[in-house]
Amino acid sequence: MERVTATYLIETPLPVDQAAATLAGEQSSGTFVPVPGETEALKQRFAARVERIEPLESVTTPSLPTGRSPASRYHRARVTVSWSTENFGRNLPTLVSTLQGNLYELAQFSGLRLLDFTVPASFASAFRGPAFGIAGTRRLTGVEGRPLIGTIIKPSIGLPPERTAAMVRELAGAGIDFVKDDELLADPPHSRFDDRVDAVMRVIDEHAQRTGRKVMFAFNLTDEFDAMQRHYDKLVAAGATCAMVSINSVGLVAVKKLADRGQLPIHAHRNGWGMLNRAPMLGMEFAAYQKLWRLAGVDQLHVNGIANKFWEPDDSVVAAIASCLATEPLGRPLLPVVSSGQWGGQAPETWRRTRTVDLLYQAGGGIQAHPDGPAAGVRALQQWWEAAVAGLSVEEAAATYPLLAKSLAKFGGT
Amino acid sequence: MERVTATYLIETPLPVDQAAATLAGEQSSGTFVPVPGETEALKQRFAARVERIEPLESVTTPSLPTGRSPASRYHRARVTVSWSTENFGRNLPTLVSTLQGNLYELAQFSGLRLLDFTVPASFASAFRGPAFGIAGTRRLTGVEGRPLIGTIIKPSIGLPPERTAAMVRELAGAGIDFVKDDELLADPPHSRFDDRVDAVMRVIDEHAQRTGRKVMFAFNLTDEFDAMQRHYDKLVAAGATCAMVSINSVGLVAVKKLADRGQLPIHAHRNGWGMLNRAPMLGMEFAAYQKLWRLAGVDQLHVNGIANKFWEPDDSVVAAIASCLATEPLGRPLLPVVSSGQWGGQAPETWRRTRTVDLLYQAGGGIQAHPDGPAAGVRALQQWWEAAVAGLSVEEAAATYPLLAKSLAKFGGT
Repeated sequence: MERVTATYLIETPLPVDQAAATLAGEQSSGTFVPVPGETEALKQRFAARVERIEPLESVTTPSLPTGRSPASRYHRARVTVSWSTENFGRNLPTLVSTLQGNLYELAQFSGLRLLDFTVPASFASAFRGPAFGIAGTRRLTGVEGRPLIGTIIKPSIGLPPERTAAMVRELAGAGIDFVKDDELLADPPHSRFDDRVDAVMRVIDEHAQRTGRKVMFAFNLTDEFDAMQRHYDKLVAAGATCAMVSINSVGLVAVKKLADRGQLPIHAHRNGWGMLNRAPMLGMEFAAYQKLWRLAGVDQLHVNGIANKFWEPDDSVVAAIASCLATEPLGRPLLPVVSSGQWGGQAPETWRRTRTVDLLYQAGGGIQAHPDGPAAGVRALQQWWEAAVAGLSVEEAAATYPLLAKSLAKFGGT
Repeated sequence: MERVTATYLIETPLPVDQAAATLAGEQSSGTFVPVPGETEALKQRFAARVERIEPLESVTTPSLPTGRSPASRYHRARVTVSWSTENFGRNLPTLVSTLQGNLYELAQFSGLRLLDFTVPASFASAFRGPAFGIAGTRRLTGVEGRPLIGTIIKPSIGLPPERTAAMVRELAGAGIDFVKDDELLADPPHSRFDDRVDAVMRVIDEHAQRTGRKVMFAFNLTDEFDAMQRHYDKLVAAGATCAMVSINSVGLVAVKKLADRGQLPIHAHRNGWGMLNRAPMLGMEFAAYQKLWRLAGVDQLHVNGIANKFWEPDDSVVAAIASCLATEPLGRPLLPVVSSGQWGGQAPETWRRTRTVDLLYQAGGGIQAHPDGPAAGVRALQQWWEAAVAGLSVEEAAATYPLLAKSLAKFGGT
């Protein structure tokens, strides 16, 4: 049988090989005393196997509480463990329970973080993965050779559908490629999902008939199960081209069920992600996270951006973009959604560090609060990217394009 | 409009009132620059409102990385925020996005933890909540006046269905009330779900016909969406009385969809929970967590146990049990599932601190590795609870019941 492997960063007061064996035991046959029936043959076949241990530094303070007496040293290591796919079959949530499960609660660890995992082709083949991804999103929007420029409707909450549609009309006129709902807006009384779809699609269709360009609007269909299915039906019937979902709030199984329908790209909003990632010795790296959601079939996934308004360092954002652009395990990349405090001036550094234009580059205030209006905001973002790909720095770009000088003056200090 | 309130523990380099305002802004209208259309009237109606700030201590080291220059002090506070239910309607995943969302990523916080939240009756009334809970579980098992005694089939993984059924036969004969699958075992090739249900229910039905007592077996139906529905159908058709699900791995929306069927108690396994809870200044308290899953309709929820094998301190376990036993917001408590390294000797302390027998008390090795066999293991657990409710200490219990002296000698050192 082929094997799934997972690599963890661990921190433990125990010798690291003993801690690694505990990890493997807990995630296969584990109990606190050996019991009859747990034969050697069964153990061989189903036991998780420690494949590799790479010792790292030791520290004197535990990263997480252990509920035990203090130790003098806590040893860190990178540990790779494997399981036969026979253990769980092609069952994505049970793969998650196997990779993570109770591990985060073990007193033997003062830190445990899932860094990455790999699945064999025989496992991956049960999943379609992103039905649209980068190529499908480009096809639907007609944008090639540059990042898609996107924005979000603000205020996040409170606008009635006709006001939302009026903003979409202005943004479409401004040349925007992509617009999304806020994650806080789904189907509230003041903006029912169906009404919003009707109002916005009317505007988008009119614009498409006039210009041949169909703006992609990611409608937030996050809701209870049946409501999400109805919302999806509504989007398909209305000719919409994208469904947005708050993936952590909804959960893996219901998101996969939506993505399996395959009629619309899934714009995956990762709100809540900080809870899984921000403590450095707990949770998981984005590399592992995006792989789970890729197996579930999302197409566009949020990654923050360079110099974002959140806590995330640029190195982490760059790594997240790279992991979306990787094609494994399903042969197709995810479209990274760059957002959070983006106004365009981050384009040169984003390009320098990623060398890709396969991005959905999103700015909120950066477009809508542009001193010369949203059309200038969109044009500025396109120019920032032209300048970036031409190898210009922020200062060189501002010296070359008058619009960018204005943009820099307005947003450069934030 | 009635309001949802949420209380957070925050840590911030900013003045706490300014940080609280940022939190409220991010979770209602937030963007990094004010934009046209965000009128005062809209703000008033949809803005999150800071209801209360209780300053706590300051610290000199940030609990979480902020991506910003170090500050001299980080201020902690308890902050209560409220939203009009008009913001999200009766939409559970969007409530989650509102309560948590991007908050965990804000650079303005070096710590942020959701402590608890309340929903108004008008919101709660859209949810049935636990269809079975404590009363329904007691009715199905015929156990009154004492904790249900449960165990888990070990080894966790590898047994074919007939071997699992043989262990259930022995455990039923031993007088067990409840048996569960391991969270790592769902529907793998070596133990297909349907085959396991058939084999186990044959044994349970034979035992019920002979004794009038139907053992509750929690079959782990964790799987892709359609498979979970099929598994649920299978359980109902086979006369099974409990469905187990790895709630974090499956996610809120698909679990609620299962629970809404209302034909089987949902045994909620919280594997993965440590990721959400173990960093003291991140994630959430169990009080908030259980409320979300209660709204989704689970009936039995894991809480660890006193002196567990995990990291969790007893105070936290006691608080978790209390929050399950609370009846709000839906008028019915959840059945707390006490587990992790339990062998019975923790019963006196569990009773002393919780004064309840409304527990599902689970022991793995504590039953199946008992020196006199599983029947003695089950009997010992019942006696530990008799002794606990009679007010005996561990030592007094062991002096009174010969079986408990043996049990103490075997497991007391672990």
